[in-house]
Amino acid sequence: MSIAEVREAYTGRAEEYISLLGSVADTHELDRDLISRWAEQLDGPVLDAGCGPGHWTDHLRRLGRDVEGVDLVPAFVARARERFPEVPFRVATFDDLGVADAALGGILAWYSLIHLEPERVPSALSEFARCIRPGGSLLLGFFDGASIEPFPHKVVTAYFWPPSAMTERLEAAGFAVEAVHTRSEEGTRPHAAIVARRIDAGASAR
Amino acid sequence: MSIAEVREAYTGRAEEYISLLGSVADTHELDRDLISRWAEQLDGPVLDAGCGPGHWTDHLRRLGRDVEGVDLVPAFVARARERFPEVPFRVATFDDLGVADAALGGILAWYSLIHLEPERVPSALSEFARCIRPGGSLLLGFFDGASIEPFPHKVVTAYFWPPSAMTERLEAAGFAVEAVHTRSEEGTRPHAAIVARRIDAGASAR
Repeated sequence: MSIAEVREAYTGRAEEYISLLGSVADTHELDRDLISRWAEQLDGPVLDAGCGPGHWTDHLRRLGRDVEGVDLVPAFVARARERFPEVPFRVATFDDLGVADAALGGILAWYSLIHLEPERVPSALSEFARCIRPGGSLLLGFFDGASIEPFPHKVVTAYFWPPSAMTERLEAAGFAVEAVHTRSEEGTRPHAAIVARRIDAGASAR
Repeated sequence: MSIAEVREAYTGRAEEYISLLGSVADTHELDRDLISRWAEQLDGPVLDAGCGPGHWTDHLRRLGRDVEGVDLVPAFVARARERFPEVPFRVATFDDLGVADAALGGILAWYSLIHLEPERVPSALSEFARCIRPGGSLLLGFFDGASIEPFPHKVVTAYFWPPSAMTERLEAAGFAVEAVHTRSEEGTRPHAAIVARRIDAGASAR
């Protein structure tokens, strides 16, 4: 979906979203484990890219990370600032994260690529790659599927991604995939997470 | 592999195995998270089926579980008793776990079905099902693969299993699969874990 469509869809349901999904307590305990363990080994500032109402951003701050949250939905950014006044938040899109080259130790993009039209995912990953220093890490969470296909997500159209297809896009953008995690549980959509390391510029210039 | 072959292979390498893989500190941190969270929600005694040198059994005890470890390799059972004197261990095979019907709240079978000839897995799962009370839980860990196939594991031949194939065997044995987890990482064999609930006898008599 276009940025405008996604922004509009979430703006209209921001409060509903926050009440249902806007707290770390609403998340899967194994996601908390993965994100926490990932965050513990980072070196350098962290960006929560697509932070929504800021609960994961605040979680990262509580873990001692130097973290900032960005989201394309101004209503989320405004509420995130209210909810977590110690954490910096600002509006940004994946076209331009507003971060200097190689400035970050890591980016968390937790279910924040899910609404992007699949053909726009590579440019978002390239923007992530630009911002992460060589050796830094990207953690993606998304809906796992056998093929890249849209489905009627409650807020606005989202896409399933096979981890193998996401891996290809990551490698093309200058990442080396280190770990792929999947989870399928009764009553929920299949989940995938990928940890990818930013390779150095020499290695990426293939 | 036959029980005798597996027993012999591990007996000859028990000390080597213990030094390399016999401690919870040697395990993947996300496996510790999964096993711990699984154990926390159990109700009733727990069996660590194929406990090896007892490190996971002891981990479960530390989490407050009433736990016993069984293994087919006497050398592992002897060393487990030495290492963790507070935990009961005994020799048993998956043909007969030596547990009363429906006596258990859960069974952990962490990489302990991996050497079984695939055609013998259903009978092991049936024995697990016999021992777990309705509503109790089984946690399996194994090597994930695209098909059921043997590979030359360092100790003795082991088998890859697709989670879908294991799910079929579990359902046939009286379990409902609640969660399937996979992880693939550079430099290690793909991993899978399944959490399955023992369904009640009425529901299993299909």
